[in-house]
Amino acid sequence: MRDEGLSYAAAGVDIEAYERVLERIKPLIAATHGKEVAVGVGPFAGLYALPGGGHLAASADGVGTKIKVAIAAGSHRGIGKDIVNHCVNDIATAGARPLFFLDYFATGKLDPEAFAQVVDGMTEACREAGCALLGGETAEMPGMYALGDYDLAGFIVGLVDPGAHPDPSAIRAGDAIVGLPSSGLHTNGYSLVRKVFEDVPLTKVFPELGRPLGEELLEPHRSYLEPLGKMRWKAAAHITGGGILGNLPRCLPEGLGARLQRKSWTEPPIFRLVRKRGRISDDEMLGTFNMGLGMIVVVDGKDVPPEARVIGEVVRHAGPDRVVVS
Amino acid sequence: MRDEGLSYAAAGVDIEAYERVLERIKPLIAATHGKEVAVGVGPFAGLYALPGGGHLAASADGVGTKIKVAIAAGSHRGIGKDIVNHCVNDIATAGARPLFFLDYFATGKLDPEAFAQVVDGMTEACREAGCALLGGETAEMPGMYALGDYDLAGFIVGLVDPGAHPDPSAIRAGDAIVGLPSSGLHTNGYSLVRKVFEDVPLTKVFPELGRPLGEELLEPHRSYLEPLGKMRWKAAAHITGGGILGNLPRCLPEGLGARLQRKSWTEPPIFRLVRKRGRISDDEMLGTFNMGLGMIVVVDGKDVPPEARVIGEVVRHAGPDRVVVS
Repeated sequence: MRDEGLSYAAAGVDIEAYERVLERIKPLIAATHGKEVAVGVGPFAGLYALPGGGHLAASADGVGTKIKVAIAAGSHRGIGKDIVNHCVNDIATAGARPLFFLDYFATGKLDPEAFAQVVDGMTEACREAGCALLGGETAEMPGMYALGDYDLAGFIVGLVDPGAHPDPSAIRAGDAIVGLPSSGLHTNGYSLVRKVFEDVPLTKVFPELGRPLGEELLEPHRSYLEPLGKMRWKAAAHITGGGILGNLPRCLPEGLGARLQRKSWTEPPIFRLVRKRGRISDDEMLGTFNMGLGMIVVVDGKDVPPEARVIGEVVRHAGPDRVVVS
Repeated sequence: MRDEGLSYAAAGVDIEAYERVLERIKPLIAATHGKEVAVGVGPFAGLYALPGGGHLAASADGVGTKIKVAIAAGSHRGIGKDIVNHCVNDIATAGARPLFFLDYFATGKLDPEAFAQVVDGMTEACREAGCALLGGETAEMPGMYALGDYDLAGFIVGLVDPGAHPDPSAIRAGDAIVGLPSSGLHTNGYSLVRKVFEDVPLTKVFPELGRPLGEELLEPHRSYLEPLGKMRWKAAAHITGGGILGNLPRCLPEGLGARLQRKSWTEPPIFRLVRKRGRISDDEMLGTFNMGLGMIVVVDGKDVPPEARVIGEVVRHAGPDRVVVS
């Protein structure tokens, strides 16, 4: 959410307070940018021009309070996959293939088992993405983290071949909007989800989920590297914090919006359960969660693959809500 | 401290427990490495070969519990400089000039003033290093961080021009060891330092320091980009967690060690004060702190600049202690 081509994301932050401080720091950040920094190519990744041609795409991410669920369940491998795939997807929106990944693992006192599980998950996701785990930092900070707690940040660098990156400026009213299915909640909305299920043991099997709640909540964030690589597309939005309503507009040029048909895709059971138990409005659901669509892609009508799920179209933007769901 | 060319650092970690888990994760990490990953060039940065020639150097770092001092003092600008310069120095040991930096700022509830100060410090250090602040993540994680606490991680990517990176394999017994002065404690040993001064207000002025303790403890980590760029050198060790004894051997090839003359440099007052108040042995001081030398460089005798502080020489390694201080 540190926006405007700065690819500064914010998870669970009080948006209003954050926007005030953004106004203060934006000129400071802009003053560090030389001509190598490409802006306006989409806010999910930062782009830096290499001397020899092409761009590097980079992103920093966390996994938010999903970590708290992993700690409660004693299951950390998925968190490792989450952080890598979150990063992979961010730079994939810039058309980048990952080169390498680094992590920051901070804790009060190192739990070797939890840490090894996280690394196991990270390395598996790195291998799947063809990405090297190039380094990282492991920090013990007693007094900062409570016993058993840890935090995890990831940092990825990818390469965008010359001329290969997507072109949001080519987006026109009438272009198709395609939704790619998510594997579950991915890594966003967990502060709300943890509140909704605060009195429910992670072992409980809700009939509609068909497996323990903990397993459902810890389902790893899916990587969209492969499906994006197979399609011809103009822009893509990684549906993370802020949900569909918060992220889809970020990949659209000014003056254009999106109209989505709510019935064009099926909300997976976990979202229906969260909505029902939390008595959450449709707007809040759409502004918090991926709702079953972890990546949303803008595609020229003629390039829509036969098997794609078209969920709406680009429209001329007419009003404050740039995404209308009907 | 995630070592062996993996540039995995560990701050304040129980080294023995950590080494056991390292044995478990090393093969997992190695399995993510293709031929692009260059190892054995020094463990302070990871190196990745670019398709067009040259290498990218990358590092991930934290600032450890120095953050706790900043929070107590309500002064955060230096922490921003610390994280950038720590990263800049790590990749400088690989001969890299910084291209861009990203940060991860995590907190319970965002304190806009503290955050803006951190960004102010980061952007100043980025400008000094000719490095773009390309992005970052700001995460609010209530329940993970106590009120007012935050953690900060930094990620940097630099470029090593073809043929430009240092060559530890050229190191020979008899080479000179040059120490570059630190600005203070930099970012390491703060768990110990905070214990030593736990009953002392940060406003106290010790006569030997000549300024408030808090100011001394928060003096920003110095960048060595400029002095390293002016010298011809074979290898460099960034003196961070583990002090001189822990870091100097990391830049030396197997079979070689270092003999340092303790009287060849003056220990700055803060180190004498820590030693005295904490009744800390010389070995522990040398194995924890930079002792006034934030970067130690191996230089061919003929390349020693006239103004350089020669603190010892490379010797054939004969025993478990690869660095002998006499």
